[in-house]
Amino acid sequence: MKIALAQLNFFVGDFDGNLNKMLRATEEAKQQGADLVCFPELATCGYPPRDFLEFDDFIRRAEGSVNHLAKAAKGIAIAVGSPSRNPVIEGKDLFNSVYFLAEGQIKHVQHKALLPTYDVFDEYRYFEPATEFNIVEYKGKRIALNICEDLWNLGNENPLYTIVPMDEMMVHKPDLILNLSASPFTYSHAGERIHVLRENAKRYGLPIFYVNQVGSQTEIIFDGGSIAFSPKGTVYEEMPYWKEMVKTFDFDDVCADTQTVLQAKDKIPLIHDALVLGIKDYFGKLGFKQAILGLSGGIDSAVVAVLAARALGEDNVRGLLMPSQYSSDHSVNDARQLAVNLGLQYDIVPIEPIYNTFLQTLKPHFWGSPPNVAEENIQARTRGLLLMAISNKFGHILLNTTNKSEMAVGYGTLYGDLCGGLSVLADVYKTEVYELANYMNKDGEVIPENTITKPPSAELRPDQKDSDSLPPYDILDAILLQYIEKQQGPHEIIKMGFDEKTVRRALRLVNMNEFKRYQAAPVLRVSPKAFGMGRRIPIVGKYLS
Amino acid sequence: MKIALAQLNFFVGDFDGNLNKMLRATEEAKQQGADLVCFPELATCGYPPRDFLEFDDFIRRAEGSVNHLAKAAKGIAIAVGSPSRNPVIEGKDLFNSVYFLAEGQIKHVQHKALLPTYDVFDEYRYFEPATEFNIVEYKGKRIALNICEDLWNLGNENPLYTIVPMDEMMVHKPDLILNLSASPFTYSHAGERIHVLRENAKRYGLPIFYVNQVGSQTEIIFDGGSIAFSPKGTVYEEMPYWKEMVKTFDFDDVCADTQTVLQAKDKIPLIHDALVLGIKDYFGKLGFKQAILGLSGGIDSAVVAVLAARALGEDNVRGLLMPSQYSSDHSVNDARQLAVNLGLQYDIVPIEPIYNTFLQTLKPHFWGSPPNVAEENIQARTRGLLLMAISNKFGHILLNTTNKSEMAVGYGTLYGDLCGGLSVLADVYKTEVYELANYMNKDGEVIPENTITKPPSAELRPDQKDSDSLPPYDILDAILLQYIEKQQGPHEIIKMGFDEKTVRRALRLVNMNEFKRYQAAPVLRVSPKAFGMGRRIPIVGKYLS
Repeated sequence: MKIALAQLNFFVGDFDGNLNKMLRATEEAKQQGADLVCFPELATCGYPPRDFLEFDDFIRRAEGSVNHLAKAAKGIAIAVGSPSRNPVIEGKDLFNSVYFLAEGQIKHVQHKALLPTYDVFDEYRYFEPATEFNIVEYKGKRIALNICEDLWNLGNENPLYTIVPMDEMMVHKPDLILNLSASPFTYSHAGERIHVLRENAKRYGLPIFYVNQVGSQTEIIFDGGSIAFSPKGTVYEEMPYWKEMVKTFDFDDVCADTQTVLQAKDKIPLIHDALVLGIKDYFGKLGFKQAILGLSGGIDSAVVAVLAARALGEDNVRGLLMPSQYSSDHSVNDARQLAVNLGLQYDIVPIEPIYNTFLQTLKPHFWGSPPNVAEENIQARTRGLLLMAISNKFGHILLNTTNKSEMAVGYGTLYGDLCGGLSVLADVYKTEVYELANYMNKDGEVIPENTITKPPSAELRPDQKDSDSLPPYDILDAILLQYIEKQQGPHEIIKMGFDEKTVRRALRLVNMNEFKRYQAAPVLRVSPKAFGMGRRIPIVGKYLS
Repeated sequence: MKIALAQLNFFVGDFDGNLNKMLRATEEAKQQGADLVCFPELATCGYPPRDFLEFDDFIRRAEGSVNHLAKAAKGIAIAVGSPSRNPVIEGKDLFNSVYFLAEGQIKHVQHKALLPTYDVFDEYRYFEPATEFNIVEYKGKRIALNICEDLWNLGNENPLYTIVPMDEMMVHKPDLILNLSASPFTYSHAGERIHVLRENAKRYGLPIFYVNQVGSQTEIIFDGGSIAFSPKGTVYEEMPYWKEMVKTFDFDDVCADTQTVLQAKDKIPLIHDALVLGIKDYFGKLGFKQAILGLSGGIDSAVVAVLAARALGEDNVRGLLMPSQYSSDHSVNDARQLAVNLGLQYDIVPIEPIYNTFLQTLKPHFWGSPPNVAEENIQARTRGLLLMAISNKFGHILLNTTNKSEMAVGYGTLYGDLCGGLSVLADVYKTEVYELANYMNKDGEVIPENTITKPPSAELRPDQKDSDSLPPYDILDAILLQYIEKQQGPHEIIKMGFDEKTVRRALRLVNMNEFKRYQAAPVLRVSPKAFGMGRRIPIVGKYLS
């Protein structure tokens, strides 16, 4: 038996587009001699469809796609993820299901049992968990179909769940496991995924064919990396990350352990590639081609410019240099050098005349009070307004360049440097931004050396430095990682040896600035805990603030 | 037996504040002769605590509050909602529990079984459902304790759930039902709540003592309205909305049906009062006193100004009139008249000099292209920037004045008129804003008549009217209600008799503008489906767009 894994990039709600893509992939799989082609979880409607699932009209369209695919399942079988209706009045209205289509018909439906409801996942908001487990027989093979998380309660050791779907299926003596996934990327996920699948293969003594979505859906990025596993738990082949691909595997070859193909898993290159795909898909799926961003001469905007140029092409990225009286010479020079290195179109737009007009207009209403954050924010917001004006005039999307450290402690101006349609770096700590910059420069200078070596500054008042108001980034980032990713409280973090005052101040800043993050652009998620839909903290809360 | 219902306003994460408030209420209940005082769901930590629940430190503090309250439970028993730990390794780490405290000790703990996971609720993200049901005996009465949603699967007729907690408890032959709630306000909720509680009382033939939270937590508003129900299903007393109160009821009186006290439930007055409380608590809990807002002479800003003055006092509300060359005379006059009527401080800040400086600065970068939305947005953003500048200078919170109709179809400028710390009207359709205005004027003119009668306009270009780009609001709002609140698809709405082109355009605008709502201020929720945490739609989605 030959099994094709179709690792494709779906588009939430684009039923026609997703269907046509699967029909083409089915043809391709046939040409590769496949007996069965497998598509990822919720492939008909795209993942995550979120509250679109609450619309009956949306479900009808998904059903239409399944019926259409069933008719195409001739001479080849198709396994595809799609929502299905729960016929029982009690419980949620839907299941998250895999349909097995063959001979022009729906041959079998298996529902997902383990419904992730944490971090970015809300599956129990929509779906009823499966309680029945069966297998399907096709061309002499007994196939255990399951979906994503269903393999993640190995030996019932995952504390979140009480049942083990594969244990239930084993009574039917399957010959192989087919897992349809939409498993979001984080910089540590690919390794974990291989570990869990390996342990499943070994435990059940069965080969696993695992197909994952590829592509970005607003905040959530899918890396692909579909895998065929031998029954001994060795990887036969891990398919490439970031690429759409239909690849057919011979059941006997996979079982015979004849090769091992693995992908590289270094953190910084993975983050780099994920962000490039995240930008590319955000623009492509929204129907935009061109990006604009402010180039300050600093490292964050430099790294975003490089990622944007790689995602969209340098001809589609426009930089704005917006110096003020507080800008140093090197800022403009470094920004200009970056634009030249990348071949970007750039404009220099001094903000002083606008800033001065604001100050003059506001003078009678400021009642002679001394300069404070208000004046600094006027500068940042003037820049935001200029960027949005050009973006509105010509149809660019503004890229936001805030990093995760700044986003965490609120070191940024709402409606100013927090503007943007997409936040590229807000899940990348400042220390990691430096690593990305060095990685980008590994084959020669792309980002000017001075941008990497100079001390970071917002340049909103004379001689300002980030270190005036924040702890050094290596310490700050280490504390933030414990609080945000590891969910450690102040006592635990202080016990690790960090200075108590610094810890309490950092955590207080994080919690006080929830109101800024609430209004921030969507953040490309690359870590296990990103700002956005996966982290839900009250704005009006008094905890640690 | 005498039972006190303590309908209090809690503050998420403010363990000391919440505890002290409960200790004072316990004293007050004692003075009223109560044998038992009841606090709402998750009273120790405030509701909804959201992802704070994932911090062990947060749970430890809640446990500390329960232990402290237990020691205070002498001469009186206390029922209080708090998270508790699930000792079993499998399943979620926490329960949503009610603690029964008496004689200085924890006497009984009952967990919540029905965990709402829809709309604004994420309870299954955090909590394991109860599987055991018991009662507690105190002073000769057998008390069935349960939490909020646990009474909302009456006769197992709620399709979301499969168990009926009270049916399980009935085997223990209770004498009364005590329900601890944090049940969010919507304009239709109080009536539904009474209906459900009445049917419970009648079904089980037991009196119900129901205590609800009061107060606003960012987006979610709690109205109070705690109730004592006779076993025949008549309301003995519905406590006031919007007010903190400790009130003691005599068990025998309630059972004897000796009185009926009900609150008024008219939609527009309820929305009015909810919004006033929402503003008041947002400011109070964040430690702010003063609001600023733009006064355009239009109805939305007028209604928000009245609500703000009623919530914060007229001395704490500052209005900015920011006319441009496109502003009509009546705009400034109407806005000024409103400020005078309300006794607000106001400033007139013409935006023309700033707008012109922007145009001059951008001229070389606009390449002679004809005016479009870019120029309109510069005006709206200049106003946003001016409001934020004064707010940053003096410590106001900017109130956003966008209504639900505009928010739905994206008729507003991101970082312009969408600025603000809190969105007051974004869950109130334009047609309802008119009803609010008329209600405010019922005892004499507060909002200038001309503001109510003139056709709405954004005044961003000569002679602009909302009706140039949008369908009449009565038709638009009716379509939006079907799509947003009732989750009807295009076919269903067209079948109701609405013009197909108008329906398709309206739905397309809603879905296309998800990116604006993603970055909008938190919205005070008054309807069953508000923008914000309760409505989760992909930004990059192709459904109906």
